[in-house]
Amino acid sequence: MNKNDLSIFEEIESSVRSYVRGFPTVFTKAKGYQMWDEAGKEYIDFFSGAGALNYGHNDPKMKQKLIEYLMSDGVTHSLDMATSAKRDFLKKFNDVILKPRNLNYKVMFPGPTGTNTVESALKLARKVTGRTDVISFTNGFHGMTIGSLSVTGNASKRAGAGIPLNHTVTMPYDNFVNDEMDTLDYLERFLEDNGSGVDTPAAMILETVQGEGGINAARFDWIKRVDEICKKYSILLIIDDVQAGVGRTGPFFSFEPAGIEPDIICLSKSIGGYGMPLALTLFKPELDIWNPGEHNGTFRGNNPAFITATESLSYWEDKSFEESINAKSEKITKFLQSIVDKYPELEGNVRGRGFMQGIECGVDGLASKVAEESFNRGLIMETSGVNDQVFKLFPPLIIDDAGLEKGFKIIEESVKSLISAEELVAN
Amino acid sequence: MNKNDLSIFEEIESSVRSYVRGFPTVFTKAKGYQMWDEAGKEYIDFFSGAGALNYGHNDPKMKQKLIEYLMSDGVTHSLDMATSAKRDFLKKFNDVILKPRNLNYKVMFPGPTGTNTVESALKLARKVTGRTDVISFTNGFHGMTIGSLSVTGNASKRAGAGIPLNHTVTMPYDNFVNDEMDTLDYLERFLEDNGSGVDTPAAMILETVQGEGGINAARFDWIKRVDEICKKYSILLIIDDVQAGVGRTGPFFSFEPAGIEPDIICLSKSIGGYGMPLALTLFKPELDIWNPGEHNGTFRGNNPAFITATESLSYWEDKSFEESINAKSEKITKFLQSIVDKYPELEGNVRGRGFMQGIECGVDGLASKVAEESFNRGLIMETSGVNDQVFKLFPPLIIDDAGLEKGFKIIEESVKSLISAEELVAN
Amino acid sequence: MNKNDLSIFEEIESSVRSYVRGFPTVFTKAKGYQMWDEAGKEYIDFFSGAGALNYGHNDPKMKQKLIEYLMSDGVTHSLDMATSAKRDFLKKFNDVILKPRNLNYKVMFPGPTGTNTVESALKLARKVTGRTDVISFTNGFHGMTIGSLSVTGNASKRAGAGIPLNHTVTMPYDNFVNDEMDTLDYLERFLEDNGSGVDTPAAMILETVQGEGGINAARFDWIKRVDEICKKYSILLIIDDVQAGVGRTGPFFSFEPAGIEPDIICLSKSIGGYGMPLALTLFKPELDIWNPGEHNGTFRGNNPAFITATESLSYWEDKSFEESINAKSEKITKFLQSIVDKYPELEGNVRGRGFMQGIECGVDGLASKVAEESFNRGLIMETSGVNDQVFKLFPPLIIDDAGLEKGFKIIEESVKSLISAEELVAN
Amino acid sequence: MNKNDLSIFEEIESSVRSYVRGFPTVFTKAKGYQMWDEAGKEYIDFFSGAGALNYGHNDPKMKQKLIEYLMSDGVTHSLDMATSAKRDFLKKFNDVILKPRNLNYKVMFPGPTGTNTVESALKLARKVTGRTDVISFTNGFHGMTIGSLSVTGNASKRAGAGIPLNHTVTMPYDNFVNDEMDTLDYLERFLEDNGSGVDTPAAMILETVQGEGGINAARFDWIKRVDEICKKYSILLIIDDVQAGVGRTGPFFSFEPAGIEPDIICLSKSIGGYGMPLALTLFKPELDIWNPGEHNGTFRGNNPAFITATESLSYWEDKSFEESINAKSEKITKFLQSIVDKYPELEGNVRGRGFMQGIECGVDGLASKVAEESFNRGLIMETSGVNDQVFKLFPPLIIDDAGLEKGFKIIEESVKSLISAEELVAN
Repeated sequence: MNKNDLSIFEEIESSVRSYVRGFPTVFTKAKGYQMWDEAGKEYIDFFSGAGALNYGHNDPKMKQKLIEYLMSDGVTHSLDMATSAKRDFLKKFNDVILKPRNLNYKVMFPGPTGTNTVESALKLARKVTGRTDVISFTNGFHGMTIGSLSVTGNASKRAGAGIPLNHTVTMPYDNFVNDEMDTLDYLERFLEDNGSGVDTPAAMILETVQGEGGINAARFDWIKRVDEICKKYSILLIIDDVQAGVGRTGPFFSFEPAGIEPDIICLSKSIGGYGMPLALTLFKPELDIWNPGEHNGTFRGNNPAFITATESLSYWEDKSFEESINAKSEKITKFLQSIVDKYPELEGNVRGRGFMQGIECGVDGLASKVAEESFNRGLIMETSGVNDQVFKLFPPLIIDDAGLEKGFKIIEESVKSLISAEELVAN
Repeated sequence: MNKNDLSIFEEIESSVRSYVRGFPTVFTKAKGYQMWDEAGKEYIDFFSGAGALNYGHNDPKMKQKLIEYLMSDGVTHSLDMATSAKRDFLKKFNDVILKPRNLNYKVMFPGPTGTNTVESALKLARKVTGRTDVISFTNGFHGMTIGSLSVTGNASKRAGAGIPLNHTVTMPYDNFVNDEMDTLDYLERFLEDNGSGVDTPAAMILETVQGEGGINAARFDWIKRVDEICKKYSILLIIDDVQAGVGRTGPFFSFEPAGIEPDIICLSKSIGGYGMPLALTLFKPELDIWNPGEHNGTFRGNNPAFITATESLSYWEDKSFEESINAKSEKITKFLQSIVDKYPELEGNVRGRGFMQGIECGVDGLASKVAEESFNRGLIMETSGVNDQVFKLFPPLIIDDAGLEKGFKIIEESVKSLISAEELVAN
Repeated sequence: MNKNDLSIFEEIESSVRSYVRGFPTVFTKAKGYQMWDEAGKEYIDFFSGAGALNYGHNDPKMKQKLIEYLMSDGVTHSLDMATSAKRDFLKKFNDVILKPRNLNYKVMFPGPTGTNTVESALKLARKVTGRTDVISFTNGFHGMTIGSLSVTGNASKRAGAGIPLNHTVTMPYDNFVNDEMDTLDYLERFLEDNGSGVDTPAAMILETVQGEGGINAARFDWIKRVDEICKKYSILLIIDDVQAGVGRTGPFFSFEPAGIEPDIICLSKSIGGYGMPLALTLFKPELDIWNPGEHNGTFRGNNPAFITATESLSYWEDKSFEESINAKSEKITKFLQSIVDKYPELEGNVRGRGFMQGIECGVDGLASKVAEESFNRGLIMETSGVNDQVFKLFPPLIIDDAGLEKGFKIIEESVKSLISAEELVAN
Repeated sequence: MNKNDLSIFEEIESSVRSYVRGFPTVFTKAKGYQMWDEAGKEYIDFFSGAGALNYGHNDPKMKQKLIEYLMSDGVTHSLDMATSAKRDFLKKFNDVILKPRNLNYKVMFPGPTGTNTVESALKLARKVTGRTDVISFTNGFHGMTIGSLSVTGNASKRAGAGIPLNHTVTMPYDNFVNDEMDTLDYLERFLEDNGSGVDTPAAMILETVQGEGGINAARFDWIKRVDEICKKYSILLIIDDVQAGVGRTGPFFSFEPAGIEPDIICLSKSIGGYGMPLALTLFKPELDIWNPGEHNGTFRGNNPAFITATESLSYWEDKSFEESINAKSEKITKFLQSIVDKYPELEGNVRGRGFMQGIECGVDGLASKVAEESFNRGLIMETSGVNDQVFKLFPPLIIDDAGLEKGFKIIEESVKSLISAEELVAN
């Protein structure tokens, strides 16, 4: 067999596979912000497993703990039986994350994926309120199972359901209509008028930055007002922090700067630390009206992930990690702004916050070409938005300046080469 | 902190937790068919992670491969990018499982849980046929996200949805009504009469043995006729083999003895081998009309699970493993029948097939007491059915005779002690 | 313009028109059981406006009352304001229908059509019970608006909805599966088993004889048991007596011989007496939890129909009318049985009860030909069933023996001529 | 029995009755714009059967034609068989209404109520487009059966459904949010963005003036732009002209001044002329893909209503009737504006257009008191809006100046007396 041979994937893996098409090689090794393929080619990772690898690949401390656990025949799979690994995680999550932020939440372990935590959140909100509808926002992405897909905006993803998606109302996200209109004036009119046709919902579900929907960052004032409207109408607020949480925008929870305490919080992706499946649903204790086993899932006790998740929380024991994220975020912003300024041919627009930034290109198809060109030059980066109109910088949070610079250089070269080529064509 | 201290779970874990209530101790170590708690107490495992640990705990060969992979900084998390670990799994699955059975299926990796594979199967069936309804069966269990819950029978699980569950029709499973009636006569009348109110469905979804629904085993003739009816009306047949598959009833796929080739097959639980999250959806190549990324999930590339899954398939390289399962299954049947015969006070009835057997107790609450009493004596075993009316023997398939005997002994002692106690009360 | 010119209908009436296709002439006059077209051709009416003309066309007494009312400028349209015409109707309905039968019902006036009374019944049942699902029966027909269509069995009618029809479960009507199986054993298993996937419904809705669905008459024992099951599970029983009520099967309410008192009764069609739009929903007083105006409709106060409805109730002041219906029903049965016996080529089967009887023909398309042939010979008669497999005798209840005999003769001649023609073809 | 005795209504009519509560007397006679109760008290009618009596009560010419038809034993009830009465109506509707306006529509006769025509329109739009969703507007009212209720905004009416109302999206009507925002900018963003969560709908359904929703009149520019947006996205436009049509705002169709040709038009209420049940659904010929009988209803052939409807169309043979409506409409506007100006205590605001005008009162409950007080003084007038915040002038279009003045006087006196009383209380 040749190196980087993809034939078995083409032969028997479903056509639903996607990333292998944009990054067509066989990866074998990964460390920090780097990956290597079978032929030994090195890649800078500005993708981070779509946000599941905030701490980079194969963090050495987590790796050590994980191997020790496996060596000792620690329990691997336990559903929701108690294990020492799970107990340690709960304690550390409480001590390092919840208590220092004065947060009081119950912790639920749904099946270990993002869509499963969202499904559990929606079910709980409906059970608690006795209402059926949920308000979601334009270009929100919450998952691919029917409950989560119902609150997801993307038309082609929705069409995949094969059934009408009901019990939801989509409201405009911050800046959806235009820059002048405060979209919450609109939302609130619907709630206050009993003839609006919008029944009081069980909950609103919200990402503070929409990673899949085109890197849209809601202003903290807007988020704060959503919270106030929810309180006014006794609607539960669910923050889906699956992608924006765990430091991706700076703080552990992405909503911290808005000064709110959501009723329900969805966590997954990087919560496991090492890229292994894990998901948490947090909610205010007074909402904890579940019956035992009323929502469950076979892999809700994934102990290897508890081990690495526990170790990953050490990053949050003081403020230094968050500060380093913020410092590097500024570099990313600065870099992106410089690209937009230097290459007006991009018709570019910097979007996002923290380690969730990108450039929206006004030229059709151009963002995808930047990503493709970058891959050829050794950078893994994906696009975002309903028309793939944004190229999206998602490096691991632990990346150092050298790594960032390497990535920046590849992006700029890719942009440059594309623009030259376009000009040649144009001439 | 005291050993087996459960206080943190009571303090901050949601009341939705369930197994920790029936098995109230802190587990630390596991090997084969045994588990140990923090105080060193040993337990025989007749539960197998609800079917996710068919090969027992921490199988030494899988463990070795897994640790080697982690040590080498193999890629841990890859979404659906190609990795050597994933490639090896696909090849071996094709060589060891599909080809020898003359099966031709495409492999899809949904999010790594049972409910995610079911959701993907339902979506695909609706997309392929352009129809919305799905026929499911009484007492079926397919998962807890909205799509899967819609085809699940249990009323209290359904109530947890908080919304009406639609686009499904429930038909009677084998022997649901009584012993005389062939429930498929009934089902077929609904399909053939255009005035029946039951529109031709996209698919039927079926477990060959219902593990959660009370250990109901459908006769192979009945399964075969379901397949024929599906073909007659151009309805897709989905076999949910999440629990009954991977050898649990003997053959790798539980439906093999029925001589059918389902259109879509759902696998999860033990497919990962080592208890780590993984799920597969298999379908006939002509159904593979997915667009790239039309259904996805962050953890669909869980490489540690690929490593152990690949190793686990070695069990299936010849017939010996399947034969050993069948031989031990007979012992289980014999034991259970002897219990029913010796203890008529149980009003017992042996149910199920293979390593999915149990006793349905006619006395209200008795099955739960047997499980509880057994736990106190060092056996982990759960109940099944809408009223927990069945105690359910689910040992790992690799258990040896000594292990089985130890478990049997505990069960019989538990039954005996309960009956004596009952008699005392009765007198 | 020529007589019986249909061009304007072809030019601007929607292709949804139907009866004009089977009876392609222009009717101008009608009296009792007879109709005349523009060319003066006379027709015997064995159709009765699909059951809306039980008292025949233009009953002289009703006509007189109606003209007097119009002449006096009595209120024509009043919504649910009080009028003397409405008051007189309520009083007489109470005195002649409810009191003598010891029935205690509240009377509601929904919009004046059958589907509107069914919609109001479904809404009330859901409101009272707080449950969403309704059980309907195979081949039931309840109307064409979305709520009513959801409980209607006919697949092509259902397809017209353009949306999935939810919140309903279809159960087998009497004799649906085969002659041996008591379909209620099946239904009851679904209700008693909490894992059946069928949630306890708000109501069951039932026709005692299915007029549109193929002239299926449920046995009174079966109806009685439905009522008992409803009571056992606190499910409301709705009898849709829109077509079978008002004497069509003999008694005023078709369910009287079953000895039941439904929770909700739907009436329309012949309740207005003269063929003018009117509908009533009756329900037990304890169910009357409507808020004022919670269900309404502009034409719920159709006073001309109150006038004729009041007069029509005089038919029910003693037993003679019901007795005459029963006597004539026997003649119809006898005639139909003789046809089946004499013409085995029909592969006929007599179905139904009272003035709702017909012959199901085993030969594809034959029933429609009988109806067509009869029309040519001066008899108006329609077919029934999902494949139009039944020709359906629906004469007005006031028809005399001479009228019946004329109709019978035409039917027999039509059958004969068709069989001869078939033979010729066969030879 | 005493005159105006309401006891039978209280005894056996359902609590759902509503107008009899606001107008608690027994009406016996009506003529033009006047009604009389049993005690001979005369009332001015500013209610017009909620818009079903645009030509006033018992119009002498229609009455004569109707009586002649009944006397001649013309066919009363005919489903969709052809009758001379129906033929005459179709011809005259084509000649007087459609042709002179250069409109080309097919005519469908659904069940004879407003909600039935709306249901047929929704079904057809979904069938034609193959899409499920329909966009409706805030405070729209379209009827009480499940399909129509799904596009109705009023929360308490919606709650009566007892099931979630799906397959619809509510968008803001003209001026819903505030005076500055053009609500169609908002709507169009949702349609153009594929991530908005709003799938392209089958249709939009719209009233040009919302009679039940608080007398909101959309500007013609706004209506025109709705039509343009529909065309741009291949969405069908349904104008529900059940209340605003047939001259209520001046022209026969309320949308004429907007210069649009809707794809589907719903007519009922006054289309029958004399207050008898009738409804029409009009649609472009290319949409006429109904199968015969795919939507039906027993009373779709209400011949007495055809007779009066045909006669009523004589009003539209020249422009004089429309001109007289417009002239009188100006008087109504002038009167209402004078009331608002003279009585600032009302916190009044004139709303609406043509013979659909009213005053929205800023003082809670005041509009209802004005209506009640007016009734006591001999004027029938109802309120509108989700909180009954508008008193609504709906006189018959044929009212003369004397009648208008009588009504105006009663209203002003009622307002005056209430304000004085309020002041007394306030002091």
